[in-house]
Amino acid sequence: MKGNEVKGAGGRGESLVLVNGLQADSVNALDRGLHYGDGVFRTIRVVEGEVRWWEDQYRKLAEDCAALAIPCPAREVLEAEARQLAGEPGVGVIKLIVTRGSGRRGYAIQADAAPGRIVMGFPFPGRENIDVRVRWCELKLSSQPRLAGIKHLNRLENVLARSEWAEPDIAEGLLCDESGQVICGTMTNLFIVEQSRLITPELSRCGVAGVARSRILRAAARHGQKAAVEAVSRERLLAADEVFLCNSLIGIWRVAKLDNKTWPDEGGAQKLRVWLDENN
Amino acid sequence: MKGNEVKGAGGRGESLVLVNGLQADSVNALDRGLHYGDGVFRTIRVVEGEVRWWEDQYRKLAEDCAALAIPCPAREVLEAEARQLAGEPGVGVIKLIVTRGSGRRGYAIQADAAPGRIVMGFPFPGRENIDVRVRWCELKLSSQPRLAGIKHLNRLENVLARSEWAEPDIAEGLLCDESGQVICGTMTNLFIVEQSRLITPELSRCGVAGVARSRILRAAARHGQKAAVEAVSRERLLAADEVFLCNSLIGIWRVAKLDNKTWPDEGGAQKLRVWLDENN
Repeated sequence: MKGNEVKGAGGRGESLVLVNGLQADSVNALDRGLHYGDGVFRTIRVVEGEVRWWEDQYRKLAEDCAALAIPCPAREVLEAEARQLAGEPGVGVIKLIVTRGSGRRGYAIQADAAPGRIVMGFPFPGRENIDVRVRWCELKLSSQPRLAGIKHLNRLENVLARSEWAEPDIAEGLLCDESGQVICGTMTNLFIVEQSRLITPELSRCGVAGVARSRILRAAARHGQKAAVEAVSRERLLAADEVFLCNSLIGIWRVAKLDNKTWPDEGGAQKLRVWLDENN
Repeated sequence: MKGNEVKGAGGRGESLVLVNGLQADSVNALDRGLHYGDGVFRTIRVVEGEVRWWEDQYRKLAEDCAALAIPCPAREVLEAEARQLAGEPGVGVIKLIVTRGSGRRGYAIQADAAPGRIVMGFPFPGRENIDVRVRWCELKLSSQPRLAGIKHLNRLENVLARSEWAEPDIAEGLLCDESGQVICGTMTNLFIVEQSRLITPELSRCGVAGVARSRILRAAARHGQKAAVEAVSRERLLAADEVFLCNSLIGIWRVAKLDNKTWPDEGGAQKLRVWLDENN
């Protein structure tokens, strides 16, 4: 480490943290992010010191802050902090958390609440752009139109769903809503291909509308590929020609196996991987 | 302050904090309580230095931890820390948070995760055992049987619901689920009286099953008062003889007014206040 030196949190040198711009390994015990999950976050890939897809990442962060009426920190401020950590050796992932800040006890939002920002650097866990085996999760996502699409800090459903399996060869679990429609993976968005048409589940009642998903939809439009946001039942997914999972870290995972169902590689995953990396 | 001195968090001397038993004003930036709301909490009244209803509070905390598979800190440890803060001048409320602790990034729970405990002292905000005016909230509570009843840290619905009004003469907002059944207030449980029968909403799909609510149900059984846990529609609530709200801090609030509907004081609130304070 050199220059703006940052110290690892947790004493194991595995991560680097800036809290409101200052090197720190802890956050105010009264922060509403801790007390209520009152905040939003982003998880961003760092490639050769560059903060990937920053335009999209910041736009989505600002949208999510707006949806919860949290004043979003200035782009330049977050960008500088993310870049500072991205320049440190071994950093492959930046996680940004923006909370409503600290305040008095109680759910009411104080007019003078100053948002808190936590920028963290982590190593990249690997497993990018691979073929995977997945499973169905038992947990059904609850329906909350006021929170759907937002990457907020209330993530107990994801934690419970992810705890349903421990087999290391199962890479992800697929989640349905109460009506049985497939929504997403525990940490990924979902696409299926039906007769060359790209379809991703509608997210107006649950799920997170991720940056990789929106980049793929935009790339499809640019390349003249038919794509749509629709309801996707389990049956429809199982009958699909191809199934993909995506997020900002893993790129495109091609679903090769789901229980006893297998899908051969039809080349769609590779096409999406190229699209995802295009500047647009 | 004297003896085991604790310092105010946030630099304003308004609160006192112990993090894992040590005086601190901050928590690990990698704590899963912050990242995912992966934890539970309790809010406890302190009366003359005594931690009120400690048996019930610890039992509920342990139940909630068990529901999320978080190892609950030992009773003696939490009790000693709560008592330490309860003995400080000006402390009228203890808030306990137990999180799954810090760990690697990602939803998966690590086998060696050590739970984190944060014990905080706050002044008592007053407004105990009063008559109140309330309103309906627009937000509908989502249905998640896996989390219903648990006082967990995913509280964005409560935050959004509480932000629906700013009028200081409205003390609480009432929340319904998607099917229109009344569930609770933003920070309270609800009881109605119908022909001397005490009824509180069923909480198997949303809401928090609070300690004051369970104490009232127990007291009713002890006193031979008919009481039941049932579905309560808006119409049923509006037609009730009496309506009460309760939690561990406010005791029993008698609902005197809801929009244009008013309820005269039939004496039920006073009876419940006496019951709530009985040793049992």
